[in-house]
Amino acid sequence: MISKLISEIKKKNAPIVVGLDPMLSYVPSHIQKKAFDECGETLEGAAEAIWRYNKGIVDAVYDLIPAVKPQIAMYEQFGIPGLQAFHRTVEYCKSKGLIVIGDIKRGDIGSTSQAYAVGHIGKVQVGSKVYAGFDEDFVTVNPYLGSDGVKPFVDICRQNDKGIFVLVKTSNPSSGEFQDRIVDGKPLYELVGEKVVEWGADCLDGDYSNVGAVVGATYPEQGKLLRKVMPKAFILVPGYGAQGGKGADLAYFFNEDGLGAIINSSRGIIAAYKQESYANYGEEGYADASRAAVLAMKEDIQSALDAR
Amino acid sequence: MISKLISEIKKKNAPIVVGLDPMLSYVPSHIQKKAFDECGETLEGAAEAIWRYNKGIVDAVYDLIPAVKPQIAMYEQFGIPGLQAFHRTVEYCKSKGLIVIGDIKRGDIGSTSQAYAVGHIGKVQVGSKVYAGFDEDFVTVNPYLGSDGVKPFVDICRQNDKGIFVLVKTSNPSSGEFQDRIVDGKPLYELVGEKVVEWGADCLDGDYSNVGAVVGATYPEQGKLLRKVMPKAFILVPGYGAQGGKGADLAYFFNEDGLGAIINSSRGIIAAYKQESYANYGEEGYADASRAAVLAMKEDIQSALDAR
Repeated sequence: MISKLISEIKKKNAPIVVGLDPMLSYVPSHIQKKAFDECGETLEGAAEAIWRYNKGIVDAVYDLIPAVKPQIAMYEQFGIPGLQAFHRTVEYCKSKGLIVIGDIKRGDIGSTSQAYAVGHIGKVQVGSKVYAGFDEDFVTVNPYLGSDGVKPFVDICRQNDKGIFVLVKTSNPSSGEFQDRIVDGKPLYELVGEKVVEWGADCLDGDYSNVGAVVGATYPEQGKLLRKVMPKAFILVPGYGAQGGKGADLAYFFNEDGLGAIINSSRGIIAAYKQESYANYGEEGYADASRAAVLAMKEDIQSALDAR
Repeated sequence: MISKLISEIKKKNAPIVVGLDPMLSYVPSHIQKKAFDECGETLEGAAEAIWRYNKGIVDAVYDLIPAVKPQIAMYEQFGIPGLQAFHRTVEYCKSKGLIVIGDIKRGDIGSTSQAYAVGHIGKVQVGSKVYAGFDEDFVTVNPYLGSDGVKPFVDICRQNDKGIFVLVKTSNPSSGEFQDRIVDGKPLYELVGEKVVEWGADCLDGDYSNVGAVVGATYPEQGKLLRKVMPKAFILVPGYGAQGGKGADLAYFFNEDGLGAIINSSRGIIAAYKQESYANYGEEGYADASRAAVLAMKEDIQSALDAR
């Protein structure tokens, strides 16, 4: 699956993923109104609103980007109807040729991690039939439980040509509280990075492994180190844009082949119309504002890569 | 919420939680057959089968136990229909007076953790209305992202009188890979335990905090230490029974007041009929076998506490 992602990155010339993390407050009022008129001010209405909002954005940007990353929490907050909107978003994005990274950050003891892996990137047996529950292409995985919590995901990647990104150094302000603590002279995130290399060794798909890592754009120095620690791991880089990561910080996350990283922006793209620089698009033009923001992000990252 | 859990533990005289972690392979064939006859060999059929299986167990044991702990992964593997069975199970258990601990092990950056907290123990605003998506009483939380990933859960506990259990030292074989690593002379799990104390300090509900911890029965020495580190944190103890934790190992997890811990058993209870000792119940008597296993577990734990 990582070779497919790389091929799409090359084709679109954009190491970019758009985070489909809809808050109801981002959804333009005309979309909210229509959804509430049809479904009421209900969980179903909220789910319908975020689905339509997503669809508008996807239709406006799918030709520019290789992948999307829906954050399942933003859907899960609306209960079952929200998760139905997540599923619908995954399916729609795949129908538009996009690779889908399910940002689910799951992780548990072995048999339980296996159930998550089956549900999101695998297939489940029901009597004589087999089904895929959510069927994303990649998912994010939390490593706190160690190898036996991660390996069921790796096994299923191998069986189904899927991929994972393991949380190594997250983009949030307090990520250092545990991740930066020094163990045997090295920060914990580096040990996790070394494990990512180990977990991914049997999962190569071309030059890169189907086992990648998450490293926040907000920590470029750590990105530089981790790029060296995990040469064959693709790095999913959140934290660009709204969280404060800048284009110039990102060059370190890439290998010399110009590959090895994919940069996520969520709010900065999907709620671009709320920023001063795209205010002229207005609420009605939110999807076009997202398209303009993708083009600007693409240029920003290209400049950073050119300046290396 | 922790005071409500304590009062139910005292009323039922059982510091026990039954893990509702249904695998399709645990569901007796007559239940599977009926569900498949009605809904086909589909995700809906699988969801119907695990829901009926759960209901049978809950009906047989609810008068003996204070709480249940459905593991959401076991439902999520069946996609949306599976999650509907999870929701139905949560609602049914609450209607039988049981406290529901959603074993969801979520955790993300701040705004995203907030969405998870809203969806599982909080309420979400939709226009002028407010809804609870899943409405468990407690959830489990992964601490790898640090304070800003945990605090949104703590805030929502305070607002809605709910509780959380933070993963500190998990029951699985490789939990030590990161959790046992020594930082400033202490294992990482101890640092996480100290943070649990900090996070829970403003969340007291009687003698205990609504912020508890998960510590596996399979690590009694670590349980002994963590009991002292976190005197006001209730400990949710998985790993008893099928995973190898024994009654005698459990005494350390309790405080001298006989409180402070609640022991989970999943497979050992819900699939008791598959064990040699309960084989005489047969598949048809699976729920009665579960009841017998709860009674045996209750006795085992009581003996361990008496022997202190």
